[in-house]
This record gives sequence, structure tokens and C-alpha cells, in this order.
Amino acid sequence: MAKKINIAMLGTGFMGKAHSNGWLKVAKFFDVPYEPVFKVVFGRNKAVTDAFAARWGYESSTQDWKEVMARDDVDIVCIVTTTNMHKEMVLEAAKHGKAIFCEKPIGLSYQEASEMAEAVKKAGVLNYLNHNYRRVPAVAYAKKLIDEGKLGTIYHWRGAYLQDWIMSPDFPLTWHLQKETANAGPLWDLGSHSVDLAQFLVGDISAVTAINKTFITERPLPGSGAAAFAAGKSESSGKGKVTVDDASFMVAEFANGALGSFENSRFSGGRKNYNNFEIYGSKGSITFNNERMNELQFLNREEDPDIQGFKDIMITESTHPYAGAWWAPGHIIGYEHPFIHAMADFLNALKDGKPINPNMEDGKKIMQVLDAALKSNEEGRKVALSEIK
Amino acid sequence: MAKKINIAMLGTGFMGKAHSNGWLKVAKFFDVPYEPVFKVVFGRNKAVTDAFAARWGYESSTQDWKEVMARDDVDIVCIVTTTNMHKEMVLEAAKHGKAIFCEKPIGLSYQEASEMAEAVKKAGVLNYLNHNYRRVPAVAYAKKLIDEGKLGTIYHWRGAYLQDWIMSPDFPLTWHLQKETANAGPLWDLGSHSVDLAQFLVGDISAVTAINKTFITERPLPGSGAAAFAAGKSESSGKGKVTVDDASFMVAEFANGALGSFENSRFSGGRKNYNNFEIYGSKGSITFNNERMNELQFLNREEDPDIQGFKDIMITESTHPYAGAWWAPGHIIGYEHPFIHAMADFLNALKDGKPINPNMEDGKKIMQVLDAALKSNEEGRKVALSEIK
Amino acid sequence: MAKKINIAMLGTGFMGKAHSNGWLKVAKFFDVPYEPVFKVVFGRNKAVTDAFAARWGYESSTQDWKEVMARDDVDIVCIVTTTNMHKEMVLEAAKHGKAIFCEKPIGLSYQEASEMAEAVKKAGVLNYLNHNYRRVPAVAYAKKLIDEGKLGTIYHWRGAYLQDWIMSPDFPLTWHLQKETANAGPLWDLGSHSVDLAQFLVGDISAVTAINKTFITERPLPGSGAAAFAAGKSESSGKGKVTVDDASFMVAEFANGALGSFENSRFSGGRKNYNNFEIYGSKGSITFNNERMNELQFLNREEDPDIQGFKDIMITESTHPYAGAWWAPGHIIGYEHPFIHAMADFLNALKDGKPINPNMEDGKKIMQVLDAALKSNEEGRKVALSEIK
Amino acid sequence: MAKKINIAMLGTGFMGKAHSNGWLKVAKFFDVPYEPVFKVVFGRNKAVTDAFAARWGYESSTQDWKEVMARDDVDIVCIVTTTNMHKEMVLEAAKHGKAIFCEKPIGLSYQEASEMAEAVKKAGVLNYLNHNYRRVPAVAYAKKLIDEGKLGTIYHWRGAYLQDWIMSPDFPLTWHLQKETANAGPLWDLGSHSVDLAQFLVGDISAVTAINKTFITERPLPGSGAAAFAAGKSESSGKGKVTVDDASFMVAEFANGALGSFENSRFSGGRKNYNNFEIYGSKGSITFNNERMNELQFLNREEDPDIQGFKDIMITESTHPYAGAWWAPGHIIGYEHPFIHAMADFLNALKDGKPINPNMEDGKKIMQVLDAALKSNEEGRKVALSEIK
Repeated sequence: MAKKINIAMLGTGFMGKAHSNGWLKVAKFFDVPYEPVFKVVFGRNKAVTDAFAARWGYESSTQDWKEVMARDDVDIVCIVTTTNMHKEMVLEAAKHGKAIFCEKPIGLSYQEASEMAEAVKKAGVLNYLNHNYRRVPAVAYAKKLIDEGKLGTIYHWRGAYLQDWIMSPDFPLTWHLQKETANAGPLWDLGSHSVDLAQFLVGDISAVTAINKTFITERPLPGSGAAAFAAGKSESSGKGKVTVDDASFMVAEFANGALGSFENSRFSGGRKNYNNFEIYGSKGSITFNNERMNELQFLNREEDPDIQGFKDIMITESTHPYAGAWWAPGHIIGYEHPFIHAMADFLNALKDGKPINPNMEDGKKIMQVLDAALKSNEEGRKVALSEIK
Repeated sequence: MAKKINIAMLGTGFMGKAHSNGWLKVAKFFDVPYEPVFKVVFGRNKAVTDAFAARWGYESSTQDWKEVMARDDVDIVCIVTTTNMHKEMVLEAAKHGKAIFCEKPIGLSYQEASEMAEAVKKAGVLNYLNHNYRRVPAVAYAKKLIDEGKLGTIYHWRGAYLQDWIMSPDFPLTWHLQKETANAGPLWDLGSHSVDLAQFLVGDISAVTAINKTFITERPLPGSGAAAFAAGKSESSGKGKVTVDDASFMVAEFANGALGSFENSRFSGGRKNYNNFEIYGSKGSITFNNERMNELQFLNREEDPDIQGFKDIMITESTHPYAGAWWAPGHIIGYEHPFIHAMADFLNALKDGKPINPNMEDGKKIMQVLDAALKSNEEGRKVALSEIK
Repeated sequence: MAKKINIAMLGTGFMGKAHSNGWLKVAKFFDVPYEPVFKVVFGRNKAVTDAFAARWGYESSTQDWKEVMARDDVDIVCIVTTTNMHKEMVLEAAKHGKAIFCEKPIGLSYQEASEMAEAVKKAGVLNYLNHNYRRVPAVAYAKKLIDEGKLGTIYHWRGAYLQDWIMSPDFPLTWHLQKETANAGPLWDLGSHSVDLAQFLVGDISAVTAINKTFITERPLPGSGAAAFAAGKSESSGKGKVTVDDASFMVAEFANGALGSFENSRFSGGRKNYNNFEIYGSKGSITFNNERMNELQFLNREEDPDIQGFKDIMITESTHPYAGAWWAPGHIIGYEHPFIHAMADFLNALKDGKPINPNMEDGKKIMQVLDAALKSNEEGRKVALSEIK
Repeated sequence: MAKKINIAMLGTGFMGKAHSNGWLKVAKFFDVPYEPVFKVVFGRNKAVTDAFAARWGYESSTQDWKEVMARDDVDIVCIVTTTNMHKEMVLEAAKHGKAIFCEKPIGLSYQEASEMAEAVKKAGVLNYLNHNYRRVPAVAYAKKLIDEGKLGTIYHWRGAYLQDWIMSPDFPLTWHLQKETANAGPLWDLGSHSVDLAQFLVGDISAVTAINKTFITERPLPGSGAAAFAAGKSESSGKGKVTVDDASFMVAEFANGALGSFENSRFSGGRKNYNNFEIYGSKGSITFNNERMNELQFLNREEDPDIQGFKDIMITESTHPYAGAWWAPGHIIGYEHPFIHAMADFLNALKDGKPINPNMEDGKKIMQVLDAALKSNEEGRKVALSEIK
């Protein structure tokens, strides 16, 4: 049997569930060097955290995250709290030499990310930033095609990450909609994913020009209107100001000469988790839509023009990245699986003493782009990444 | 905490993995009355079975399935062996009063299915036949639409279940390709699913006319050519006769007057697990493709003709059947999840002392259709279901 | 300038319009040896026919079709009347040595078609049967791929021709719904197209088994309910019996061993002119949907399995069949254009003294399949084509 | 019979063919007040122009376009020359009181367009600028839905007009690639269409930020390399500098608060005439792809969330805009048909003495946006439309 390794989960929300599911399954489907043990879970609310611990089988439950970091019997810390907590937690984890598995976005700014990257480097700890879409088999396969030269010189990245969950004016002023806790809206939440994918697949971005919009500028306070919203009513006594973007559209130059676009919005009706990209190169084109994440479209410009076309490839063959661990061709996987791919790679990296990507250093580069976008929007001009320090 | 309930797994192949994964997860995502415990796993090969037990955490491992059935500490038996073992196992399980969770197809004939249905009825045990596609949220939602009358009078079922995994002549003569162990080819393996869905969604079938074909009549024996095939070579010393269909196409009449088609094939290049159906009614139409199982297409004929069209509904809202247990809108689930839906329903049925569908009785009805198809093919004529006894 | 050639149009309905449009355009877009002249149009209703002549520029208008056939100044007769008139007209045209451009289906039976084929053969006149879909560029390109061996051995034809225009019970009892004038419903109207395509692309059919259904057995008489229907009312004093099928589903064996299906229906809500087919072979697969007639899907099984997928090829390159005569890549053509392709081929065949396909002989073979389908439905058994004489 | 009206065609290329086809057909399919007569065609090359006249039936052929404008027997002038000729021709046509049917883009700059709009206004002549996509039935229907309020408040326009015809470095330096004759690349050619559609469907644009790229900066001169290219060789003795963009990506603010994107490229492999847009509003969403121009996707956010989805509406019903003039539901039309719709509207406007859109005034507004995009690219900043005078 594999050696046991102890997991601390910091957070009990949607991501606490997604990460716990991943650690539960990773050793069943992948040949990993360690078998995860659910050691401790941290959450602010005791009742909620205790229930979470009971359901998932965490040995203990706590409201003190610093205590978790200090425990000797914790090997890996999973940071899945709100973004504004990431920096402090990563710094503390690094101090205690923990292996760090951190949700995205890395933090609130390039400045924060720089401190985090510095801290983990100094501590020499394994660190991973969970831009999970890199490990969707179709995306990993796209990367393989690009690395093999199947796209030739890349001319375009077209990225759109569209959702619609806050379109109702009755949706309350949660932490996602406040600058203090989220820094920005879809630019941060969704754009960080798109930028990570673009830099992973196409290369470094060198300059951007962006325009942001906030369509609904006031929303019911979570304490008042939120309850009303949850109850299906629209009355809202107290209102507060939305201090982030509802949408952010950006044009970008890549260092290699490619021209790209990034369109991030939470006001695109019918788009639920539409993380879509298109890449056009001299030898081939690729398109991907995360709502159909088991498929990749590829057009090979080196074929006879008569017979060229976008090919819909089902990325479920045993020879496709990660896919062999699961079911059979045509038997699709879902949102949760790329988390497990990351965990398998993470455990192997831990064993081998090697780094894993994306990590804090990659997160820092993403933040540089997003900070440039914010600056571009504010100043009404194109901003070079070299201006963000 | 929920009461513990003991699971015995009979089989360690693809389905052993799919079922174990399901029992592992069901109590994490659904509020079920019991918490599954991995008690014992049966497999013919000791080394394989022991490794399976170790990976999944089964307390014990055995090569004697009858002993499993007789154990007092087993509550639920999961039958995931080859089809020709189902009858004997179900009869033994019923004898010992076990709750039965059985893979499809139910067995080799209407005759076998009748014995099985009789046995579980007599024993009064909970029994479930795993035609998993009924619990794909999109299919369950289609059922809801139909039950609400959204399709009106149904005129057509068009079912196609297409795969391509045995198209190479070098694919060996496995148990799937022999009458003794599988009775038929895609007619049985895939057709049983399609017929189950059709009878679930449209109603009972009353008569069929079918033609079967075997395109590759001889294949390398598993011992000889199989190894060659696995090794990527095509030489094959010994060959044996394929005794099942490679494809079976059927037209069917439903008791309610609808006209249907069933096309089952393992020779449809590019179709991996293409379980596709279309239903046309006086008030609406539905289409579904399992390779995009998170989506359902619906056309509402009661809308203004100007604005009618097939609507692609992403079945991932918290209000859709089963979907609320998982992630968020647009965050898709995969092949493995409907198994877990069945397990949740199974545990609740067990608690409540109520039946669950599909079960042995439903399996019997499926077999009646498939036996009629075989007879139709052999006799070159339309066969009424009433002829199958 | 090209030599002038005189056209007689027999019929002024939907098809009169489609054919006139074709002759108007053919010499503008194709280098044809003759320039069509609109000589005379025949129609039963004088006012309608005169108006048609005026709009399209026919030199004269008549209610006597036999007179048209006898005219010396008519070179080509375009037969676009109801199906039950085809035989008599073709025989008369052949007698007078006219080149014949005839709408499908050829006639009401294999017997009629045999007489027609015999007559044109004896007269030695150029004759064409307008199964227009053969000359959709995507279909012609599919034929090219098949002829080049890109599909290898063909295992399956899956044809579905679905419409929904008579689903309302208020739709009146037009000539399409009566055995005397149409012989059958979608089996004849739509099935003749599908069978033509299947025999063109896959090969000869050898046996069929079919079930037909009539869902709405009585309809308002055209004189009474029809007016009500047109006026948007549903009252209908007089009713008559529908004597043809509303849907016909068929399984077919091909002489080369392939297994096929044909599903023809006018009760498939949302399907407007859904002439869809799929062909699966040992080396490749093809799918086509006429509602997106500028595209063809092709999967190449000889590629590395990792990168196989259905390719959506836009058939608008100048190198694709017929496409070079039109616009530019990605600038699509529509329903009317394949008629013009047939006319260009027809004029060239006339000049060269060569035959063109499909013709009366092909029509005869189509009728043999459809007659077998009718017999199969009536007798509840599989019918070999050799039984139809 | 309708009164005859005389057409002069200025240009014999791709657009000469498309326009001639339109005038040939308009009175056959629409009840228009005039019947077009092919009076005269102008072209620079006598042999080519004479052949064009013979093929299409123009009564005369000339190399002197000013003479055409001065002729008393010309009623309508069709301007289909290179863009740099438009201004001079429109001014001359206006001077002579001709009705003007002019291809897009209107001209080379906002300055030119202003002069043209002023001239036609002063002359009081009917003038139309052929942004043909407005009259694609699906686009006209989208406009209807928006005008009826079905989209509510519009938040986003996402426009992409992508092609790939100049991706080969061997493609020669034609007039499209030179600033003198085309002013810009896809920004002008494709972007003018997108901007027209956006302002038609969403509203006026108020500010833009754009980045342009030229990927291949030198190309073979038409005299040298072009011949080589046409001959399938890649040698190219003489080369010249490309002085326009190969791609232009832009973010735009609309006066009504919407945020939009425009992505125009000739370097998007596999995209042939991919004029694609998406519009997101508070009550609904729309998507359109011109390569499937007979379809429109609509999502209605006012439906129950359970059953919301993008509906693929086939815009071929007789009640859809323009569609009733053609064939039958599901029988699609193509690239050429919207030209004919414009001609029908143009003839009716001429009869009624009413304006038609888009016209020179609309063209002026389009140019303002495109000039702002050029300025934004040059100055690396967001440019307000009010800056362009």
C-alpha cells in the first residue's frame, strides 16, 4: 500500500466539496505514491464545518486556520477560502513548510502574487495554483498538438468566458461583487482562467487594452435582499454599491506577435460555464468549449483544402491525456475530474521533489495581465505588461 | 451518522470499478439513509481480486461467489459479472434475501428473465437492474416533460446506439462475441438499453421486425490473436467463429400506436458511446445524445411557428433531476454519475421498503422485445410480442 | 452565343417555379452549349397559367398538354405535374422525341416505371429524373470520396427524411394524401429520394422489411376544411379518408452486404426538410443533413485514433463539385441550386448524345424498392426485391 | 406588366455577377413595381466587359463610366468597383440624378463618406449602401425580436468576422492589401459589415479601443508572384509591402451602455465567410453565424430556468422576413438571396419616393467607427467617436 499523506482542507464551500471529492478519488483511479487521509478541515462556522467533517470523514474540525498550518501531522494544505485570504494563508503555510494546493485566482493583485511567489520559493515548498482547466484532457491534448507544431505560427487567441448567474438585479451583494474581497468581477474570477490558458497554450502576453462595465451598480445587501432573493421575493430594504466589473472585454498582444481577445462576463444569458477559446495558427486551428469539455475541434490546414474542416474529436481515448484512468471511449467525464488529475500530478511531484504548473510563479504572471487590464480600463489606453511592477 | 450497510461486489472489471466508485461517493453527495461499507469483493482471479480489494478498500476478497451470497454480514450484492452468470447469481441472492443491484442486460433470454423476476418476487427482495441511462438528468427530465404532456401524443421513437470498438478484424473473439456467453451482439448489449429507454419514455412495444448482420464472421481466439492484437500485431494463428450479430436494425410498433426504430451497431466508425434517441409527438419533440449527456434538445410545437426550434437545454440546473447534488449550472457531470443516482434511489427504496425501477420485471419486458427481434431476424417476418412466452 | 433551345414547362406550382428559375440561370453560371428559351407553359387553370407565363416570360400558355408534346418548336419538356400524370406525359413526350426532364417520384409503381423506362429507351430520347439531391455539392463530393475508396467496405446506410407539414389534423386531404394520386405518403415522396441516394452512394438494395403508419385517418376535404384551415379555423364539415401512410420505417439489406435503415415521416415536429443520411464504412464515415446542405461530415478511420473525429467540411471550395460556378468559399448556396446543376449536366448530355443519371431506369429501380416496402408492410414479412416484377 | 426600369452595372467582377443575378431574379420572386432591364455594363477591360454583357444580356458595354452616368436611359446605377472609386462615382451619379445602389464599404474614410452623404442628400436621389447581411432573413428576424423587446436591455455585442483566404504568404499583393485602394484590411472589408449590423441591431457606438496586426508584411507583386501563385508555385521575384492590417480586434462602448467586441481577421484558418455575432440582453440572447445563415439561435430568459436553452430556429417559414418569396420551410436560401431582398426593397422605395437603409448616411456612421479604430490603434488609446470629424 501507498504511504499515507495528511490533508488539511481550508474552506467548506463549493470548492471544499470539489477538492475533498478529488482527494477521495485520486488513489482509486491513479497509481499515486501517497494515499490521502482527511486530517482536518477549517471553516468559520462551527456547525457547518462539523457537518462537513462528518460527511467527508475528516478526523477533526476547527475554526482556527493558523493552528492547522502549525500542525505537524498535516502534509498538504488545500486553500479554498475567499480570494482575499489566499496571501496570508499561503505565507503561513510556506512558513511551516507545507505543500500547498491553492484555489485560483491567486490573490488580489500582482503585488500580493509577488509576495506569495517569493515566500514559496524561499520556503522551497511544492506549490500549485488550481487553474484546473489546463488538465481537462481536451486542453492538455490541445497543448500537445501545439507543442508538436500542428498549429504552426499562432496568429490568434480568442477567449470568452461567459456566465449569467448574477444577471438578476435581485442577486445580492456577495463578496464576489466587492473590491475589498474580490478586487474585480469576471475579469478576476474568469479572466484569470482565460489568461492562464492563453499563456499556457499561446505564450506570454505583452500588452493589453481593456474596457470594463458594471451594468447593475447597486444590489441588495446579503443580510436583507439576499434572504429575499433566496426566498424568491424581490423586495430589498438595504442596498449597497457594486464595486467590481460585471463584464470586462480586452484585446491583447502576445510577445510572439499573436493578437488575442479576452471577453469575460457574468451578463451573458444562457452561458452557464462557457469557457470557450479558439486558436488560429498558420498550420491549424483549434476550438474548445468547456460546456462540452470532452471534445476538441481541430482543423488541419496541411490537408488538401477540399477536405479541410473542423474535426470534432472526442477526447476520451485511453491514449489521450489522463483519459485512460477513467472509463471507455465515449464515456465522458465532468467538471470534477481535472481536479483529480491535478492531485495525481501533485502527489507525484511531491514524491519526486519536482515543481508542478501552474504555480505561484504562473499566478504572478496572470496577475500582471489582469492588473494591466484594470489600469488600461482606468486610463483609457493600452498598457504594456512591463508597466506593472 | 447514517447506519452502515454492507456491500458485496461480484466482479472486478470495468463495471466493478464503476459500481465501487458509486458506492464510495453516494453518501457524500446525497442524503441517504445508509452509509455503504465495502465488505467483500468476488473475482475469479485471486491476484486481480486482491489488488482490487486493496485499491478500493474492500475488507475481504474471495473466489467463491456462493459463499458471498450466504454471508450474514452482506446486505447488498452488486452483480457485475458476464451476462451468462446473472441468472444463477440473482437466484442465489434472492434465496438469501439480499438486496440486488444487478448490471444489465438482465440475462440471456426472456426465459431466464422470467425465472429471475419470479425469484425476486417470491423472495420479496429489493431488486434493481442497472439500465443507468434512465437516471441521466437529461433523460429523467425528458421523462418529466413527457409525463407533463409536453410532447402530446407520441408518434415516433428513433433510437440508435452505435459504437465502433470491434471494427478491426484483429479484435479477438471475446465473450461478447459468443452466443453462449452473450446470446447476441449489440442487439443485447446496446439494444437492451435502447428498449429500456423507449419503454420508459414512450410505452410498451407490441411488435417488431428486425434484420441482423455479422460483418466479420471469424476472429482470432483470445488466447492467440488477442495477444497479438494487444501487442499491435495482426498475425493470428487460431481463429474462431463469431456467433452473434455485429449490427441489428429493427422497426417497432408500440401499443399506443407509435412507430419506432432501433439501430444497434458496433460497426459505426467514430461513434464511441453514441446512445442517441429522438421522440416526436403532437405537441413537441425531444432529442438526446449520450455523448453530450448534459444536454437535452426540446422543440415546443405549441409556440408560434415563427419562433419554434430545437432548444439545447443544459441539464445542470439545481432544479433538474439529480443535478442539484453536484456542482453548479454548466459544470457538467459524466458517465459515472447516473450510477450514483441509482444508488441513492436504491438506498432510499431499501429504507422505505418500496420498489425501484428498472428491476427484474422491467428486464423481463426488455428480453421479450429482444427475443422477438431475434425471432424476426431468423424467420424474416414481423413478430408480435405476444408470441414470446 | 450558344444555340437557343426551347423549353416547355408542364406545371405551374412550386416545382414550376423551381424549374423555371433553373432554366433562367443555368446559362449565366455554367458554360452550357444551349441557351434555354421559355417557349410554352402548360397548366390546368388558365388565369394561373397566364400569370405564370407573364412573370417568367414564357412565350405562350396553354391548357392542353398533348398539344405541347406535339409542337415542333419544343425541344425539352419539363414535367412537374402531380405524380399520377407522369407516366402518360413521359410516354407522349417519348413518342414525339422530346428530351425529358421529369420531376420525382417517377410514378405510382414499378409497373408504371417499367413502361416509362421502356418507352424512353425505345424512343432513344435523353431522359432525366429529378432526384435533385444527388447534385448537392456535398452529396456529389460524398460520392467522390466513396468512389475513391475513402470509406472502404460499407457497413451501414442510415437514412431519415423527416418533415412535419401535415401534423395538424386540420391539414386538408390534398392529392398527396390519396392513394389514387400519390400511391403512398412519405414512403413515396421522401423515400424515393432516400432510396435514390442510398443506391447512388452505397449500391443496390436486395431486400426490405417495413412498417407503415397512418396517425390521422380522416381529414377535412380540400373544398371544405381546407378553406377553413387556410383561414386559420379548425371547423371542417366534410371529411375524407387518408389512404396513404403518414410514416414509413424500413430496414434494408444491400446486395453488397450492408445493412440500412430508411425512416420517412411527415410527423416529425421541427424537421422541415430534414433529408439526413449517415454512411459507415471500414475506413471512414460520412454524415449529411440537407438542412445544412453546404456541409459534409467525414471521419477518416485511417488517421491515428487519437485525432479522429467527424470533420465538418464546408463544401463551397471552387474545387468541390459544381461549387466553382457560384460564389466564394463560405458563401453558401441553397435549395434551388442543385436543380441548376442538373440542367447544366442535362444540356451537356443533350449536346454530347450521352445519358444522364438518375433517369427512368434508375427510377424503375427505386420503385422496385418502394413497392417491396409496401408489400412488406402489408404482408408483415421481409420482401426480396426479386419478388417485385 | 410592371414598368421597365434601366440598370447600369459598373463593374464586372464577383459583385457584378452577384448584382446582375439579383436584378435578373427580383421581379420573378417579388411583386415589384418595376421590371429591371440590363441596359449597360461598364468595365475597364473591353474583352471581359463584352463577354460579361453577352452572358447576362446587357444591351451595351463600355469602358467609360462617366458616359454611363450621363445617359438619359439609365435609371439605376449599380456601383460595384473597387472601394477607392466609390466616392467619385457616387458624386457623379448624384449629379445626374440617378438612383444609386452601391457596394460596401462606402469609401476610404469618414471624410469621403461625408461628402457622399452630402451629395446624395443635396441631389435628393434614392441611395442604398449594400450591407447585404441586414436582409438575411435570420438577421431581419433578429431585428424584429429586438424591436419587440424580446432581448430587453442589451448588455453585449460580440461580433467576429473571420476569413482565411490570404493566409498563404504566396497570396499576391492585390488591391485589397494596399492602403491607397482599400485604406485598411479586414477592419474595412469585414469590420464595416459587423459595425453596420451592430449599429442596426444594438445601437450607436460611442468609443472604441483597437489593436491591428499585419502578420505577413511583404507579398509577391500581382504581376510576378501572383502568376506563380495561380500556377501553384511559390517562387516570387518581385515583392511589395503590405500596407493594411491582416487582423483588427476592437472593444467598443455603445451609447446605450452596452459593451461590445469586434474581431476581424483574414488569418483564421477554416473560417471562410464566418460573419458571426452574439447579442446578450436582460431578457434574451441571440447568436448568428452567416455560414449557417438560414438559422438563428434565440434564448428566452423569461422562460422557466429549467427549460431555457438556445433554440435553433430555421428561418425559412413563409412568415419570416423575405422567406415567403422563396421555397418552403427547410428549403434553404444562400448568399445571393439577400441581394435580391435589397433590390425588391429598393424598387419599392423608388416607387414610393421613400428612403431605404442602410444608405450613405449609415455608411458615414460606419466610417466614423472605423476611422476611430484606426486612430486608436495608432495612438494606443481609447478613442471617442466624437473625436472623428
